[in-house]
Amino acid sequence: MTEPDVNACCFDVFGTVVDWRSGVIRDGRAIGAEYDLAVDWAAVADAWRRAYPAMMNRVREGELPWTTVDDLHRMALDDVLEDHGAGDLPSDARDQLNRAWHRLDPWPDVIPGLRRLRQEYFVATLSNGNVRLLANMAKRAGLPWDLVLSAELARHYKTDTEAYAKAVELLDEDPEDVLMVACHPVDLRGAAAAGLRTAYIHRPDEWGPDADPGEPPDAEEVDFLVADLEDLATQLGV
Amino acid sequence: MTEPDVNACCFDVFGTVVDWRSGVIRDGRAIGAEYDLAVDWAAVADAWRRAYPAMMNRVREGELPWTTVDDLHRMALDDVLEDHGAGDLPSDARDQLNRAWHRLDPWPDVIPGLRRLRQEYFVATLSNGNVRLLANMAKRAGLPWDLVLSAELARHYKTDTEAYAKAVELLDEDPEDVLMVACHPVDLRGAAAAGLRTAYIHRPDEWGPDADPGEPPDAEEVDFLVADLEDLATQLGV
Repeated sequence: MTEPDVNACCFDVFGTVVDWRSGVIRDGRAIGAEYDLAVDWAAVADAWRRAYPAMMNRVREGELPWTTVDDLHRMALDDVLEDHGAGDLPSDARDQLNRAWHRLDPWPDVIPGLRRLRQEYFVATLSNGNVRLLANMAKRAGLPWDLVLSAELARHYKTDTEAYAKAVELLDEDPEDVLMVACHPVDLRGAAAAGLRTAYIHRPDEWGPDADPGEPPDAEEVDFLVADLEDLATQLGV
Repeated sequence: MTEPDVNACCFDVFGTVVDWRSGVIRDGRAIGAEYDLAVDWAAVADAWRRAYPAMMNRVREGELPWTTVDDLHRMALDDVLEDHGAGDLPSDARDQLNRAWHRLDPWPDVIPGLRRLRQEYFVATLSNGNVRLLANMAKRAGLPWDLVLSAELARHYKTDTEAYAKAVELLDEDPEDVLMVACHPVDLRGAAAAGLRTAYIHRPDEWGPDADPGEPPDAEEVDFLVADLEDLATQLGV
């Protein structure tokens, strides 16, 4: 573990910055209640999220043309609802539920941590979520990004190298001056392969309180191991 | 002049949102003073800005590969300085001066107007300025954009249709639900050709107090004619 001097920090969003599971459950319950549906919305949230890597792989492998995460989510939703006893939910309610991903709340450390970090660093998203999704989320939740960047701008999903390289190009930085911050080791390995620095943040509650929180990577695999964004600000000297 | 119902407003930046001339003069004077140069910085600012359309044309016509505005500005600067008796300015001072375009101040109506507009509309830049330039400018000046969009994302400079079409795509809107706001009729004609709605804002001081302020377009050529961003907010019912 070195202590590199970076100019910009790029953040993974789903899991790293926002608690997608609680937000999807909350909106699912509200929409389900309107339609008198008895559904395990936690199970829906988990199944919906688990469907997402395979959907992105269909784009990566050319089975689908470039398709945004909004559209991938919507494509996956029908099967997930059918499998969980919510096959009667009408189409416009499905569209409304699909926008739950625009309405996610950040973990408690995120806004104070970003406020500190952006005093000395340039802070941007680098998510597979599409640009408008990320911008709507930031507007609603008050996330103080200096810039919204997305895999959509490269038309390559992380962990493809092109996604990181496009972000570095638009930041007008050298790769080694950009720090990728994520709670998923696979994302950090992709970033490192593109020449970026890496910070692993542990989010043991991403999959809920009863899920196995997983193990942090070894300290030598990343440049920073941090507990949360406040800790990242401290470790970066802000 | 109709009164279309739009969801998002895209703003041209140089001239429309920020007073590039005063900002370049201010930074030129400060940097020139460090090097004891007697230079007419207003003339430098005007000549530098006048060189810019021809530089973009070299990209549009394929004479240059895609080149950011930061790099086009830097390429044009050497001749401008030579022509105005500042040929002795060292290279690192030229680089510093080139960043004056990141440090421009908004017209007085911009921040209050944007604060009102973003309560009901999604507000984004759509400038030929590169992404990092626009994001640095927003961070320094406190411009409350919901999103930074740039011709750089299309790798086509306005008024090429691709620049507007890429913004509409990333906004995930239909073109007729997006309003282009600019003080240059040519930009609005490009936006209209791409299917966007248009608002002309008069900025008679763009080229300084002694320049011909030009004539607004006829009312039937655009969807809105506005005095400033506060007036736009009022006309849009915010």
